[in-house]
Amino acid sequence: MNEPDFNKSELIPVIAQDESSGVVLMLAYMNREAYEETLKTKRVCYYSRSRQKLWRKGEESGNVQELNAIYFDCDADTLLVKVKQVGGAACHEGYQSCFFRRIDPDTKALTVEGERIFDPNEVYGNK
Amino acid sequence: MNEPDFNKSELIPVIAQDESSGVVLMLAYMNREAYEETLKTKRVCYYSRSRQKLWRKGEESGNVQELNAIYFDCDADTLLVKVKQVGGAACHEGYQSCFFRRIDPDTKALTVEGERIFDPNEVYGNK
Repeated sequence: MNEPDFNKSELIPVIAQDESSGVVLMLAYMNREAYEETLKTKRVCYYSRSRQKLWRKGEESGNVQELNAIYFDCDADTLLVKVKQVGGAACHEGYQSCFFRRIDPDTKALTVEGERIFDPNEVYGNK
Repeated sequence: MNEPDFNKSELIPVIAQDESSGVVLMLAYMNREAYEETLKTKRVCYYSRSRQKLWRKGEESGNVQELNAIYFDCDADTLLVKVKQVGGAACHEGYQSCFFRRIDPDTKALTVEGERIFDPNEVYGNK
């Protein structure tokens, strides 16, 4: 087991974690091309399943993810990247983390954790 | 968006993070049944894709994951659980985290990070 196994699945889930705070920022996917580009440029490049093309995280917003470390798991089917999140927010809704909705296990009620770091309308326009 | 969307996909990836250290332990999957059981019992239950049945993490090794908090992401297609990992190791290979193989972006050489907390042969026997 020398590298992530893109033969088992063309797309491998990738967990992005903020290097300094340890906060889990998001989950996205890489194909082999995105993986190779990430290693080469040391900026995280995903594969967008909805747009079906490479997704250089932050190419529009400027909030790129600089690669500090990259790992794969014991089954070689998941990646973990530790990153410096430029701009402080990984989520397109303006939060540091995409996981800002917490579920109460007893009532299933939701609470929002974390502050909006940017206003999505200002960064992406009204789309 | 009130809950994770099991209509989009029957299986939703779940990131498990150690509550106290912030270490990302593993990635696995839940179907709705596993999700409901996790909320109810406050012990993490996954769905094993290979065995095609509910996987009560730790049912064999005793290394269960006690649920401290559960989140879903902005697309409602990924879960994050913050857990207390009983026994200290989430990986069946005996490491705290399944992400113990670090890739050098320049050379693709691997280094192992972290210590083995248990010996898999002792916990699972020779299988």
